[in-house]
Amino acid sequence: MSDNTGNTDNTSNDLDALNERHRVRMERKKAIIDAKIAAADKQIGIVIVNTGNGKGKSSSGFGMAVRAMGHGMKVGVVQFIKGAMQTGEEMFLRRFPEEVSFHSMGEGYTWETQNRERDIEKAEQAWEQAKRFLADPAVGLVVLDELNIALKYRYLDVNTVIADLLERPAMQHVVITGRGAPQELIDVADTVTEMNVVKHAFKVGIGAQAGTEW
Amino acid sequence: MSDNTGNTDNTSNDLDALNERHRVRMERKKAIIDAKIAAADKQIGIVIVNTGNGKGKSSSGFGMAVRAMGHGMKVGVVQFIKGAMQTGEEMFLRRFPEEVSFHSMGEGYTWETQNRERDIEKAEQAWEQAKRFLADPAVGLVVLDELNIALKYRYLDVNTVIADLLERPAMQHVVITGRGAPQELIDVADTVTEMNVVKHAFKVGIGAQAGTEW
Repeated sequence: MSDNTGNTDNTSNDLDALNERHRVRMERKKAIIDAKIAAADKQIGIVIVNTGNGKGKSSSGFGMAVRAMGHGMKVGVVQFIKGAMQTGEEMFLRRFPEEVSFHSMGEGYTWETQNRERDIEKAEQAWEQAKRFLADPAVGLVVLDELNIALKYRYLDVNTVIADLLERPAMQHVVITGRGAPQELIDVADTVTEMNVVKHAFKVGIGAQAGTEW
Repeated sequence: MSDNTGNTDNTSNDLDALNERHRVRMERKKAIIDAKIAAADKQIGIVIVNTGNGKGKSSSGFGMAVRAMGHGMKVGVVQFIKGAMQTGEEMFLRRFPEEVSFHSMGEGYTWETQNRERDIEKAEQAWEQAKRFLADPAVGLVVLDELNIALKYRYLDVNTVIADLLERPAMQHVVITGRGAPQELIDVADTVTEMNVVKHAFKVGIGAQAGTEW
């Protein structure tokens, strides 16, 4: 665009310079990233832990289930703490019984039952199901949703859980979610993310809604 | 169990006391949580932003897509930055064209193309698709994957993006992912989570793997 003041060339030169700086910066970035990717050449089953007080721990686990299913992998899901309502992820994933095996403890949150001994019994049953997945090389990804809560309340022994995790097939991935992941679990995990709240709709009076929270 | 030392009753009493303390604590917790849930009674479409350097931003967005589909909602997905490989989430979600409409910019990462003007053109095309979803009340959830990257590189104007977001149907939810969410977007979002790296398998030489990273 010309503005009849002779700025046309300057503007055009500025833009060319900007585009060229961008190209050089991206070329440098590509070299660095390519080198890192070349160095990271191990392919092995990993343990992923999603913890913290923010949103996205469970939904990320179910997003990984979708990823794995997209690559033709079989997925096993155990939900250790289940709310009263059937979740969207459960309703959706149960449509594919050949691809994903979905199990849940079948009880409300711990503050709903208020019965410690029954919670322990249910957690132990859920862990038995988890162990069946962790012993099956045909299962490519195991999602242990809200396992951290069961560990935090000591319904399950963290050392037993870790021993079973480490015994699993070499190429099997595991995603473990929930607040308050114990340090022992973080120590043995390969990838650990802490989801932190920057802001949350709940705090300004917006309720848990279908499709976003459950 | 009796050990013939008279400890039977003590052990049994200790356990009873532990269970009772648990019950009382959970009863109190339930009262607090029930009150919070009762106060959070608004049902309205929200904007969710997943940012930070940790894992789980995109996978959480796709987990929410699964949740929404479980509740019978239609989902629109636009991927603003696409790697060279077809992702698991894309391969899986494309199986359900009636339920989810999947679009991607069709280019590599910005450091792969090294061409700023072409990146801008592609980002603008992707935003045109996003706007079609944001104008359609039949779409219950819009996933704008890696939009933050396009904003960070200023391929799209943040004020234009925000204006279009705020114009959307009242009950429509939006999930926006990617590192470096601009402050202007955080200000208008309802729920913002920062995914922080505690540890990452990539740093110890484990490459990006099908089913967990893509």
